[in-house]
Amino acid sequence: MRQTVKNLQIYRIREVANAGMGRDDVLKFWFGESDEVTPELIREAAIDSLRSGETFYAHNHGLPELREAIGAYTASLHPKTTGPEWAQRVVVTSGGVSGLMLACQTLLDAGDEVVAVTPVWPNLVAQPVIMGATVRTVSLRPGADGLWQLELQALLDAVTPTTKLLVLNAPNNPTGWTLTADEQQAILAHCRRTGTWILADEVYERLYFDAPCAPSFLDIAEPDDRLVVTHSFSKSFLMTGWRLGWLVLPPALVESVGKLVEFNTSCAPVFVQRGALAALAHQADITPRLVAHLRECRDVLTQALRVLPGVECGVPRGGMYAFFRIQGHTDSLITAKRLVTEAGLGLAPGVAFADEADGWLRWCFATRDLARLRQGVDRLAHWLGI
Amino acid sequence: MRQTVKNLQIYRIREVANAGMGRDDVLKFWFGESDEVTPELIREAAIDSLRSGETFYAHNHGLPELREAIGAYTASLHPKTTGPEWAQRVVVTSGGVSGLMLACQTLLDAGDEVVAVTPVWPNLVAQPVIMGATVRTVSLRPGADGLWQLELQALLDAVTPTTKLLVLNAPNNPTGWTLTADEQQAILAHCRRTGTWILADEVYERLYFDAPCAPSFLDIAEPDDRLVVTHSFSKSFLMTGWRLGWLVLPPALVESVGKLVEFNTSCAPVFVQRGALAALAHQADITPRLVAHLRECRDVLTQALRVLPGVECGVPRGGMYAFFRIQGHTDSLITAKRLVTEAGLGLAPGVAFADEADGWLRWCFATRDLARLRQGVDRLAHWLGI
Repeated sequence: MRQTVKNLQIYRIREVANAGMGRDDVLKFWFGESDEVTPELIREAAIDSLRSGETFYAHNHGLPELREAIGAYTASLHPKTTGPEWAQRVVVTSGGVSGLMLACQTLLDAGDEVVAVTPVWPNLVAQPVIMGATVRTVSLRPGADGLWQLELQALLDAVTPTTKLLVLNAPNNPTGWTLTADEQQAILAHCRRTGTWILADEVYERLYFDAPCAPSFLDIAEPDDRLVVTHSFSKSFLMTGWRLGWLVLPPALVESVGKLVEFNTSCAPVFVQRGALAALAHQADITPRLVAHLRECRDVLTQALRVLPGVECGVPRGGMYAFFRIQGHTDSLITAKRLVTEAGLGLAPGVAFADEADGWLRWCFATRDLARLRQGVDRLAHWLGI
Repeated sequence: MRQTVKNLQIYRIREVANAGMGRDDVLKFWFGESDEVTPELIREAAIDSLRSGETFYAHNHGLPELREAIGAYTASLHPKTTGPEWAQRVVVTSGGVSGLMLACQTLLDAGDEVVAVTPVWPNLVAQPVIMGATVRTVSLRPGADGLWQLELQALLDAVTPTTKLLVLNAPNNPTGWTLTADEQQAILAHCRRTGTWILADEVYERLYFDAPCAPSFLDIAEPDDRLVVTHSFSKSFLMTGWRLGWLVLPPALVESVGKLVEFNTSCAPVFVQRGALAALAHQADITPRLVAHLRECRDVLTQALRVLPGVECGVPRGGMYAFFRIQGHTDSLITAKRLVTEAGLGLAPGVAFADEADGWLRWCFATRDLARLRQGVDRLAHWLGI
């Protein structure tokens, strides 16, 4: 087996989850998904497809009607992407993570240099390593308000002409950090100079509380910029388990990524894609309601955490996570495991997302039932002896 | 973009399919799937799962009950794999192709050497190249009976201590070539000496006409042999569009492959896995009926082809393809495109599977309706002026 693969960290969130295995009484906030089932109209569209016998291979790029619907949806959020050619730049993938892996396979030879902004969902850093690339990280820093911030100049300094790819996830999992449009402009201009590709994981763009959509590189990029944007149906449409996402690509990459889809997963199931078509057709009903509810979840949770003595917790502008720390508890893996076994509270350890995030904890606040959040905070307070 | 990826051949079967785009009158035998819809009981199991709200992330390794069912199924075919530890060696993947890619990611560093037996489904050769490996091929040769055969010693000579991985697909797509148990023994013994991993794509093991199951490396290997076996629900259960397969791994690889599942597709949808559980529960009804019908398809097609003057066509022992050539038609891509546009007959060009298979054509005989095969042969005969 490859040493590179052996060295890949096992998903540390699972390590915590395993500590609570077999216990039904744990309040689980460790994974990045809501406890709400996919809306019925989406499930029924998939059921209709199965009933009608759509059980065959589909086009590598995705159903043409789904690519068109995604193109129209993208244009509605990012007017610069208006026009029929944009649907041709969409490739449907088997989840956002598959899209990210396809981007790495398309762009990275072994030995290439990648820069990533951390803390971040560990998959984004692992994928380039799997392709044999070297990853250098630029750290966000916690500010006085408890929110993590980018030092833009440090990032620009880190990206040089030898940097093949810059990986960014904003709105960010786990910190909620979001790039401003001005920062995106500065980064894009810099990467044009260095010849660096940008891989922008924007799956949380709709889970944003200051506007209907977070700033996106698609608002500013030109068609031939070295930019790959990843999206997913998981977060905005409550479809985590469906494994469906998409890429927005420069025209020159579409054919090659289609080849790589063939060699990775062949295609996404048609009945899954039919569910996604229903999701997009009803997105005006689904996503704003979901985001309004998530805002309430965020407020309930962060307000309850911020009054606990010794707890430092910002109020994130995007995403579905509170990222916080507790004075005196500096080893997040130990803290998270203790919280599971001693308090019945399931959180993700910050160290899963970056070494510099050790001591922090991620709490996914996407839940149907606000009382679960309050109950969780009660358990934490009790465990802290408050 | 990587030159390696640019150089990957676009799927040549699609190149032929594109030549027939927009024509409803083409008889399509070019893809490797039956025109039969997935059995209703499988679809209903997925529907029940969707209705009950199973729309969340699942374990990277697959549902425990599915891994157990696959373990039991494997033991029923390959008694040497009996025992509860075998289910722990099964990892569920998003299609057979994803399993193969995971195996390559697990085993291949850039610069590693791979040996593959060709002609073969092009994905098997492309995947190591994507990982930066170098692929050397050992060719099967057409025999007097029109069937392609392995020269075992040539293969053994090609696999040296510098060979990291040997890729084998038997029963073979496109030729129907099958390894004998003796050949598997010789290959395994040789690879033990050279320290070479064997990646055995055995997805066609049930589509075998001399016995209920083709010879498998799982019949002879020891638990710690360097062996990865890939399987799929696509062919034996008429589930091509579902994108579900599995790997059988040495114990030491299971954790690492689970990590790689996380970084590639996260997991397979639970409702898809429920369909697979139903498929396995009813496999005694589904697969033997399917194989009996495929045998009839094979006989109808090959008998009709073999009587055409100038046509050379063996009777394959496994798989779902007739692989044949026509005297005087040596460029298979041109021939396949002409057959689409001039005769309304959709076949796959041999060159898609290896340079040495140019001049050959692949005809997928998996069809509900035997009359379609006869009609296809009539079109071919008419086109040939017979």
